[in-house]
Amino acid sequence: MIAIDWGTTQLRAYRLNDAGAIASRRSQPKGIMAIPGGDFAAALDEITRDWHGAADREIVMSGMIGSRQGWVEVPYVSCPAGLRDLADAVRAAPTDGARQVLICPGLVSRGTDGVPDVMRGEEVQIFGALSISRKTPATVLLPGTHSKHAAVSNGSISGFVTHMTGEVFALLRDHSILGRLMAPRRVDFAAFDAGLDRARHRNGLLHHIFGVRTRMLMNELDAASLPDYLSGILIGHEIASAEISPPVIVVGEPELGALYQRALDRIGIDPELIESDAATTRGLYAVAELRRKAHP
Amino acid sequence: MIAIDWGTTQLRAYRLNDAGAIASRRSQPKGIMAIPGGDFAAALDEITRDWHGAADREIVMSGMIGSRQGWVEVPYVSCPAGLRDLADAVRAAPTDGARQVLICPGLVSRGTDGVPDVMRGEEVQIFGALSISRKTPATVLLPGTHSKHAAVSNGSISGFVTHMTGEVFALLRDHSILGRLMAPRRVDFAAFDAGLDRARHRNGLLHHIFGVRTRMLMNELDAASLPDYLSGILIGHEIASAEISPPVIVVGEPELGALYQRALDRIGIDPELIESDAATTRGLYAVAELRRKAHP
Repeated sequence: MIAIDWGTTQLRAYRLNDAGAIASRRSQPKGIMAIPGGDFAAALDEITRDWHGAADREIVMSGMIGSRQGWVEVPYVSCPAGLRDLADAVRAAPTDGARQVLICPGLVSRGTDGVPDVMRGEEVQIFGALSISRKTPATVLLPGTHSKHAAVSNGSISGFVTHMTGEVFALLRDHSILGRLMAPRRVDFAAFDAGLDRARHRNGLLHHIFGVRTRMLMNELDAASLPDYLSGILIGHEIASAEISPPVIVVGEPELGALYQRALDRIGIDPELIESDAATTRGLYAVAELRRKAHP
Repeated sequence: MIAIDWGTTQLRAYRLNDAGAIASRRSQPKGIMAIPGGDFAAALDEITRDWHGAADREIVMSGMIGSRQGWVEVPYVSCPAGLRDLADAVRAAPTDGARQVLICPGLVSRGTDGVPDVMRGEEVQIFGALSISRKTPATVLLPGTHSKHAAVSNGSISGFVTHMTGEVFALLRDHSILGRLMAPRRVDFAAFDAGLDRARHRNGLLHHIFGVRTRMLMNELDAASLPDYLSGILIGHEIASAEISPPVIVVGEPELGALYQRALDRIGIDPELIESDAATTRGLYAVAELRRKAHP
């Protein structure tokens, strides 16, 4: 089968063997916002071109491709939700050929104040990660532009919370008074740790980030260490304000995953790391398997 | 005398009568970053041109004009600091004429974690506000791009804390995924209040702001109400994470001041509002008076 993770900015395609292992992978900066005329079929043909037998293969997708701006809108499924709820809510994209393209739904969860939270794509990664892990985790954490913290139990996602950590980091680095002082990042774990510590002091996030400016002004931090200091403050706030029950799985790219591991370690949590690609493909493979059993 | 508040983006000039009242005022978008070749003397001549007798008048300035990027660097004075400490640290700008231009220092304060905090310009407004107020405030709050909360006692500033509330609001509105959904602001106090309430729930600021997106997605809030909802979340966080002792003075523009008044009212504080122009000019007038007494 072919597994596709189609987000706002990236299109990732994986050719899987019959056991669900990755045989081949490709990635293009062709997120759903970058497809001319919304011709998703053409973009799909292009990224799977010359994959042996691709035309006959089953295709299962997750991510923003199922949103209102995507190929077909697949309504959000409410939490708590298991893999079967996801598989049952899958919709077929309106292709003109014989090829079947299935798109997974996203999830919606409501916080204690009744405000909704949403995800599209991460739910598939969460189920993939659960099938890979040797542990029985209580929390799956997916760091990124919009970090997701999902509470899981008995193979279901009971609820989740989004933190805009990665987007706020990029905004502050690229557009704020703080970014103007920064040199390109030189890895500085001591600065990252200092940021984590600052996040636990008083006066809150809107105050703490101003320290990036003042510590530079007072020559206490080097311009190349400021990105890690800011990153520590933001990730520290994400972790400190969340209610994280161990065991924890972190699903992400190795470099960012390592920063979260460091932040969690400081509060006594030793997370298992699982790479995004593995989580995505195992999850989409599991959805396809359930569909095959239901509609043989 | 002539009082000048010269910040990063704005140059504000006031002609004061002998009693310190504002006789005339002008404002130009000629912050210190927008002065070609750093020719501050020319910009000053231009904004005071045709003010009767301006060439002979005493000029006192505050703001970023005293920073490293300004006309002359006036080192920060450490808290606690009174008006006299400020007046003693004033430096003259290197003018070529007979005209004397005095520039006030900024203040530096250290938080409980030892990280420095700085202000330039607000300290003059704080002393101005103290001289205007009929109360004996414990806190002076100056909302804005970088909100300042100053603790005051016995006419001195004992310490202060900066919150980047206004800058983060502008970043999220102008550059984030949240801003893309927004229509131009239509005043919606109910949305603002809902934001204040959300700021008191769990999971922190990086999570709360994502509600701007999800409540729009779920048709719970109108696009034109999103700016006030976001504003409520951010101001709510600033207020909730600060330790504000009443009585409180808020120094600012009437519209923004009213939002802070609303936020403070929700936690049982009824602040006195003082306009920025009045606070700036009273403060610079008081500095000039002290200088005259010291160097008659």
